[in-house]
Amino acid sequence: MQGAILYGPKDVRFEDREVPRIVEAKDAVIRISAACVCGSDLWPYRGVEPITQPTPMGHEYCGIVEEVGSDVRLVKPGQFVIGSFFASDNTCQNCRAGYQSSCQHREFIGSAQAPMLRVPMADGTLVATREVPPDALIPSLLATSDVLGTGWFAADAANVKRGQTVVVIGDGAVGLLAALSAREMGAERIIAMSRHAPRQRLAREFGATDIVSARGDEGVARIMDLTRGIGADAVLECVGTQESMMQAIRSTRKGGYVSYVGVPHGVQLNGEELFFAHVHLHGGPAPVRRYLPKLIDLVLSGKINPGKVFDLTLPMNQVAEGYRAMDERRAIKALLRP
Amino acid sequence: MQGAILYGPKDVRFEDREVPRIVEAKDAVIRISAACVCGSDLWPYRGVEPITQPTPMGHEYCGIVEEVGSDVRLVKPGQFVIGSFFASDNTCQNCRAGYQSSCQHREFIGSAQAPMLRVPMADGTLVATREVPPDALIPSLLATSDVLGTGWFAADAANVKRGQTVVVIGDGAVGLLAALSAREMGAERIIAMSRHAPRQRLAREFGATDIVSARGDEGVARIMDLTRGIGADAVLECVGTQESMMQAIRSTRKGGYVSYVGVPHGVQLNGEELFFAHVHLHGGPAPVRRYLPKLIDLVLSGKINPGKVFDLTLPMNQVAEGYRAMDERRAIKALLRP
Repeated sequence: MQGAILYGPKDVRFEDREVPRIVEAKDAVIRISAACVCGSDLWPYRGVEPITQPTPMGHEYCGIVEEVGSDVRLVKPGQFVIGSFFASDNTCQNCRAGYQSSCQHREFIGSAQAPMLRVPMADGTLVATREVPPDALIPSLLATSDVLGTGWFAADAANVKRGQTVVVIGDGAVGLLAALSAREMGAERIIAMSRHAPRQRLAREFGATDIVSARGDEGVARIMDLTRGIGADAVLECVGTQESMMQAIRSTRKGGYVSYVGVPHGVQLNGEELFFAHVHLHGGPAPVRRYLPKLIDLVLSGKINPGKVFDLTLPMNQVAEGYRAMDERRAIKALLRP
Repeated sequence: MQGAILYGPKDVRFEDREVPRIVEAKDAVIRISAACVCGSDLWPYRGVEPITQPTPMGHEYCGIVEEVGSDVRLVKPGQFVIGSFFASDNTCQNCRAGYQSSCQHREFIGSAQAPMLRVPMADGTLVATREVPPDALIPSLLATSDVLGTGWFAADAANVKRGQTVVVIGDGAVGLLAALSAREMGAERIIAMSRHAPRQRLAREFGATDIVSARGDEGVARIMDLTRGIGADAVLECVGTQESMMQAIRSTRKGGYVSYVGVPHGVQLNGEELFFAHVHLHGGPAPVRRYLPKLIDLVLSGKINPGKVFDLTLPMNQVAEGYRAMDERRAIKALLRP
């Protein structure tokens, strides 16, 4: 079997890897229907996160169960399943509180850009559909695995409610789907911060009512103009830099909500500024598993079509081109078919 | 008239000041029944916040309305009133959202350690009782003006609910009343971090079920022991230092809530650590005005007795001794009578 391996900055290869097999009794092995490249894969790809050894890549996946361990009860061979980037037992106290991405026994899934994948704690991690879905739904179902689940968490963690004014910072796939999520939660006004025409179009299609291309302090000033000097009810930070985080905090009304869903890189928050900003702050690795059943239903019922973020589809052996296209912002998100 | 003036570190004097009078049509002037020294007054008193000129002090107050401006409708001379440390119009969008301490027209009340006080935006700022209350209730009513209101916000901002495990960091008057507030909100287990016997006793009287004297990483480890490795549902940070803030974040369960209600001094939060901590964070200057009607009712009905935090009562002209006693931790909180 061949799969994606990152060797260092800008150096991803499709190479021989061992075929995954059942290791623990709670494992499943699945045959990947589709995987993709994540915005967060670009941090190590760009060398911002150092890579110390050749590292298999990929943490978004859906596929058909090939084999299960002796202790798997709920998931069966032949089923179509989707899981999240953190395997979780879904029974510990953190999982029961809805924070499966902080499961006490979590394991990161890090080798999904390949035709086969081992998934630990299969019963807790995977959600099966009743039937094997039609091929046309694969992109949208794959999106629930991370990018939609993370955008949904951005809106949920920012407490988005009917009638509110919501700002989304970041026009990557997560930001775009955060706009879609805010719309599903009833936001009245959704302001997408974006300066790229194709992404602006998709943002509008997903529910954005306003587009603001300014950034940083200028972006904050524009949001203040649009909200009569008050700030937005909720600001969804989908980038992870110091600038975007401060832009989010400063664009929020007193008592409003800021969520952040991308791993912050080099972000330091000044306690005193945060104090007087008077905002609520919540974020972290999205507990996608909590949302999967609902999001899968929304896709299967045709209510949402998050798969539109995939504007590039490649055979998996061209995974390197997927990274390049996203790095150069030629593509929003690259889908990989085995 | 004489009032408290801070000249520099450890140098507070009771000196001649102009008698306050109506300046704006929305002002009231009140005759102070009691004022007090706040933990936050100790920051400039200790020189941590620099004082550039002689500065009147005091922001907690209750008293009898002496005179009102021509545009005051709700508050009348002769009424007993309580207000918060930020005057607020109580009509702007921030006020209506319940964040009166971020009122768009807020003014800090900074000269309440005196027999008379000018209060701007009297209708929005002051809450009057139906009758002039008996003298015995003055300490508890005074407490609602800041220290109880701030402790209440600590519990509310940390989303304290019935049956939860709550940690309070800080055994100053705010921390002690945060424990009382958590108990009123139905917390089942309230762990007070304190190493001072008289404060431990008061914490228990106010509802603390456990006392932990360890601090920092050791304090975190103790909380983890007490919560079977999960962390507390809510942690109320009532100190404002880097150590106490990190202790709060690290003592909270995934998906739990951290509140912080004292102005942070030199606090920097690392974005990545906060992200993986997975906590909710909310704080800022307590919107005491939001809670005043409810807290005054709780005091008048005899349900709570927050005035117990005043373990030192002085005539106002001995205000300097009040600061000294609190600075040296000989007193929890000093009440001043004119």
